[in-house]
Amino acid sequence: MAASSSITTSSTTSKLLFTSSSTSTAARLLPFTTTSSFKCRAFHFHRHRFNPLLHVHVGPFKNPRIVFTHSTNRPPSSFVSAALATEASAKVIDGKKVAKEIRDEVAAEVSKMKEAIGVVPGLAVILVGDRKDSATYVRNKKKACEDVGIKSFDARLPEDSTEEEVIKHISGFNNDPAVHGILVQLPLPSHINEQNVLNAVCIEKDVDGFHPLNIGRLAMRGREPLFVPCTPKGCIELLHRYGVVIKGKRAVVIGRSNIVGMPAALLLQREDATVSVVHSRTKNPEEFTREADIIISAVGQANMVKGSWIKPGAVIIDVGINPVEDSKSPRGYRLVGDVCYDEAIKIASAITPVPGGVGPMTIAMLLSNTLTSAKRIHNFK
Amino acid sequence: MAASSSITTSSTTSKLLFTSSSTSTAARLLPFTTTSSFKCRAFHFHRHRFNPLLHVHVGPFKNPRIVFTHSTNRPPSSFVSAALATEASAKVIDGKKVAKEIRDEVAAEVSKMKEAIGVVPGLAVILVGDRKDSATYVRNKKKACEDVGIKSFDARLPEDSTEEEVIKHISGFNNDPAVHGILVQLPLPSHINEQNVLNAVCIEKDVDGFHPLNIGRLAMRGREPLFVPCTPKGCIELLHRYGVVIKGKRAVVIGRSNIVGMPAALLLQREDATVSVVHSRTKNPEEFTREADIIISAVGQANMVKGSWIKPGAVIIDVGINPVEDSKSPRGYRLVGDVCYDEAIKIASAITPVPGGVGPMTIAMLLSNTLTSAKRIHNFK
Repeated sequence: MAASSSITTSSTTSKLLFTSSSTSTAARLLPFTTTSSFKCRAFHFHRHRFNPLLHVHVGPFKNPRIVFTHSTNRPPSSFVSAALATEASAKVIDGKKVAKEIRDEVAAEVSKMKEAIGVVPGLAVILVGDRKDSATYVRNKKKACEDVGIKSFDARLPEDSTEEEVIKHISGFNNDPAVHGILVQLPLPSHINEQNVLNAVCIEKDVDGFHPLNIGRLAMRGREPLFVPCTPKGCIELLHRYGVVIKGKRAVVIGRSNIVGMPAALLLQREDATVSVVHSRTKNPEEFTREADIIISAVGQANMVKGSWIKPGAVIIDVGINPVEDSKSPRGYRLVGDVCYDEAIKIASAITPVPGGVGPMTIAMLLSNTLTSAKRIHNFK
Repeated sequence: MAASSSITTSSTTSKLLFTSSSTSTAARLLPFTTTSSFKCRAFHFHRHRFNPLLHVHVGPFKNPRIVFTHSTNRPPSSFVSAALATEASAKVIDGKKVAKEIRDEVAAEVSKMKEAIGVVPGLAVILVGDRKDSATYVRNKKKACEDVGIKSFDARLPEDSTEEEVIKHISGFNNDPAVHGILVQLPLPSHINEQNVLNAVCIEKDVDGFHPLNIGRLAMRGREPLFVPCTPKGCIELLHRYGVVIKGKRAVVIGRSNIVGMPAALLLQREDATVSVVHSRTKNPEEFTREADIIISAVGQANMVKGSWIKPGAVIIDVGINPVEDSKSPRGYRLVGDVCYDEAIKIASAITPVPGGVGPMTIAMLLSNTLTSAKRIHNFK
């Protein structure tokens, strides 16, 4: 859990890595892959013209179904399906820009709240042990909080802390009226039971939104979760801010993790998409993705989704952040998504880049959730 | 919630009607439809030979994908795909028989438990008001409990009871060590807030399994719900008992209600099916069902799923129970499912009838959940 802790960006280093929980498994199992083995297949649209009949179930020229429509059924002029133009290129969904907008909005709200009722939202982060990456994430969160005027609290506990000690700190934050959100930075040292610790966070302050009670409410019609998990919320927010119609569309979510895939599917379904969840046991996942108007991929498999998997005009949200070996990079590696970007950009109508797509949205949503929590606790509209 | 209360069978009258919550909406909006308007379309396989290319996405003769396989990939001799034989007919999944088996198993376990530790499982049902149908359901549950040796408790409260009075009774059952499961018969009188009442049932005794905490655990990998909702659990149990392989198969759930569709989709996904959820906002739902190895339909639309919607060899679980006008019936109506049975039986490899399919499973699962609860509370393996 604490997914917002799991996908984090440091703007200075551009390191965007999965560090915890289920979605990170693939990335952790395949921490470094040679660029060559993950290079997109030789499926270059500028060389071979795309023959939709070979790759796409429903003939794209007959029915390109561009989903970028607002009130009319005609696509805005800037959104031209790749299938309809020779040199067309998808709209790049700029997560960095949107995240900045959201942080600005949060900052304005925080300031309004402070002025009106004298309350400053507070976020507490609990870090156990000395993992460098975890320390970096915590530092980034602290910085992001400061930037928008949210007060940040942290508890740094030694590696050999007992479960009881960690839970004692959580209880302290649960009872602290200055704290409106609590995050436990994952992973925890192996001698500590993660579920026990996470269950100790009171649901009103569980800004990660991963408490089963929250997930249950997310799944149920007529119920409202207290918090929506940050990364999937960020995905949907990107669709909203780019005017992508979700209702009535076919959506495919690749990956069924607790922190991204599953809640993303529930969110899309809440917005009246028809959702299929594709996972490691799915035979021929491309048969599903080829029919999708919207694809959200969160598996941690570098370049898994090829151009041939994508329906012309589809919108692609790529949550994967995978390091691949790259001798040309000063760091020796570079980060790529689950989707073969070079191919996808020529067939999709819109796509998130990696990095700079979903990554920056996670912290923005965490700040937004913390604000929501403070507003709710203080009944501030 | 209290879904087990919503779809109930009275064996004497064969009245199987939706009475509560979301899945019942369609049935209630369309309480009586003329038989003619809901008659399956003229798509008779004994007259016109089925041309798969007209109706099925993946050519069925090329790839009938019969899902009735255990360890081998060859179908058991009794399960012949309709597409491969002229007069073939699907295996009828006998819910009445399976429900009887389950009740017998529960009875044996109850008796074993009583002998070993002297504990008898107890189920409490709370009925508010004078609805005749609700009274019938409560009576049936009581009878079913008695038959397997589960002690039944009931509280019958007048129509004008206050919310507080109802909750007081729930609290009483929460604290009663002889009660291991609590059901609130729905619908409640309109002046009572259903959610408040249902939330009062302690999660350890919520044998309906509809507490959001349970649904959340059902959705999350690595978590286990305390109870699985009765009707969807019954659907999956039928698949299991008929040896239907779920892992790796394509499943389509029609309907996304809290009490059947949504939890059924979560259960199928837990068993490694690739699940698509089709609903009222889905354009061309038949495009999804035609690709499905397993279809679970729970919408309450008489004969909605035509033969042309079904892939040859698919397995069909029909949760719908819809009354259609029938002048030939002494009652003036008869009950049909969501699936056009006459057509489906000629193309599917297996199908549940209505009545006598999923219906009888709901109470069997309720008894099973009550036993599970008693075992857990008393730590009896």
